[in-house]
Amino acid sequence: MVVGLGPGNRENFTPEVLAAIKSAQVVVGYHTYLDLIPDLLQDKEKVATPMRGEVERARQAVELAAAGKTVAVVSSGDPGIYGMAGIIIEVAQGRVPVRVIPGITAASAAAASLGAPLMNDFAVISLSDLLTPWETMLKRIEAAAVGDFVMVLYNPRSYGRPDHIKTAREIMLRYKSPETPVGIVRQARRGPEEKIITTLGDMLSHEIDMLTTVIVGNAQTRVEGDFMVTPRGYRL
Amino acid sequence: MVVGLGPGNRENFTPEVLAAIKSAQVVVGYHTYLDLIPDLLQDKEKVATPMRGEVERARQAVELAAAGKTVAVVSSGDPGIYGMAGIIIEVAQGRVPVRVIPGITAASAAAASLGAPLMNDFAVISLSDLLTPWETMLKRIEAAAVGDFVMVLYNPRSYGRPDHIKTAREIMLRYKSPETPVGIVRQARRGPEEKIITTLGDMLSHEIDMLTTVIVGNAQTRVEGDFMVTPRGYRL
Ligand SMILES: C[S@@+](CC[C@H](N)C(=O)[O-])C[C@H]1O[C@@H](n2cnc3c(N)ncnc32)[C@H](O)[C@@H]1O
Ligand SMILES: C[S@@+](CC[C@H](N)C(=O)[O-])C[C@H]1O[C@@H](n2cnc3c(N)ncnc32)[C@H](O)[C@@H]1O
Repeated sequence: MVVGLGPGNRENFTPEVLAAIKSAQVVVGYHTYLDLIPDLLQDKEKVATPMRGEVERARQAVELAAAGKTVAVVSSGDPGIYGMAGIIIEVAQGRVPVRVIPGITAASAAAASLGAPLMNDFAVISLSDLLTPWETMLKRIEAAAVGDFVMVLYNPRSYGRPDHIKTAREIMLRYKSPETPVGIVRQARRGPEEKIITTLGDMLSHEIDMLTTVIVGNAQTRVEGDFMVTPRGYRL
Repeated sequence: MVVGLGPGNRENFTPEVLAAIKSAQVVVGYHTYLDLIPDLLQDKEKVATPMRGEVERARQAVELAAAGKTVAVVSSGDPGIYGMAGIIIEVAQGRVPVRVIPGITAASAAAASLGAPLMNDFAVISLSDLLTPWETMLKRIEAAAVGDFVMVLYNPRSYGRPDHIKTAREIMLRYKSPETPVGIVRQARRGPEEKIITTLGDMLSHEIDMLTTVIVGNAQTRVEGDFMVTPRGYRL
């Protein structure tokens, strides 16, 4: 079972995820995620692995399952969005049955804090080029900007690549106004949550780190009090 | 409070959503959504509204809140994704406090059933042109295809516009191979769930209706047993 813990707070785990973890004999995950659920792990075998150890983690989980154990692999957010679901299916190659149990992804959590920035079509892009070639990423940022998508940026500042967000912004500025609202949410529904609503022009004067999701509006997005809203298009 | 019921099954509501509904004096929503939670509504005022009555529903909810009631407006999935969050904030205009509580969106629910199609960058597009001009939609479909995004299509067959999905497919075929895997999931985590994995070439030979989410792969997406997987890019 590959399960999604959601953004962090226990009130955002679904009952299906809780039941899956309870039913498991072994729980596998990056140690920060296991630290979110110590009470659920008391009588279980735990396999805590370092960050970026995804392939190794997947191999261990599949071997344990092949040996007859019930295994839950935990991801933050939704395991199907930049999480562990894919690598588990790829490593398992049909040798053990795999079940993916969704969680609330960072885009939904960050959007809820910002108001309603995702009420119209949006593109989700990871700025981590550890796994996607940089040219592909540039092409996608440009395509999404050309399409006037609301853009949700995950991994906006990956290890040792602090400049990706600058380059992404420059590309977006070719197609989007510098006044375009931008929402920056750190530790959404995990806490202590920090939320800023700024503009594409000013966004780099705010701190953006690995625990942050950045949402850049489309041409209709506007600020409404404390909120960032992309109109769906209803006539009021 | 604008709350997301998730795809449908009770095991996919979060505790935060349940608590919000329990705390409400009035629950407002499209009657199909209220029908999912009859036990939670027993001692509450209910405002069931017809489909497409979103603006009216939002006005009623805001008026009730302005009159001092605690109101929960329920949306399916995530209220922030083609749901009620935006219109509530727009109608409220700061007169009453608004809180958005996220739910699992159809993209996550459908992806979990299909395996792991969203492990790389993706675009979410609604094919309902009731609210977005058709030319904008065509531009977005083309941009997402040019960017080799995985594409998630909501409202793939809106009332009286059965041909949008055909046009979308023709545009995608200019940039994506006819062999591109396509996943079609009906009533994901609501049941009776139906899931089909087909190709961009063949997709129209399957039924696609309003209760369906369609996920079209990128150039790397492949079929792995019963699953559709977009590799994240790990070296195995
Ligand atoms: C490797 S991705 C994992 C995404 C996760 N599977 C999901 O669906 O949310 C890590 C990135 O997700 C985003 N993220 C995850 N949890 C977050 C939270 N609670 N608040 C803000 N951003 C978050 C950040 O952009 C972070 O760099
Ligand atoms: C108006 S949108 C509402 C989306 C919702 N707010 C969400 O986040 O899932 C309705 C569309 O969502 C998709 N959808 C919603 N629930 C679904 C489910 N359980 N299974 C498959 N698709 C679903 C379908 O494409 C449907 O036409």
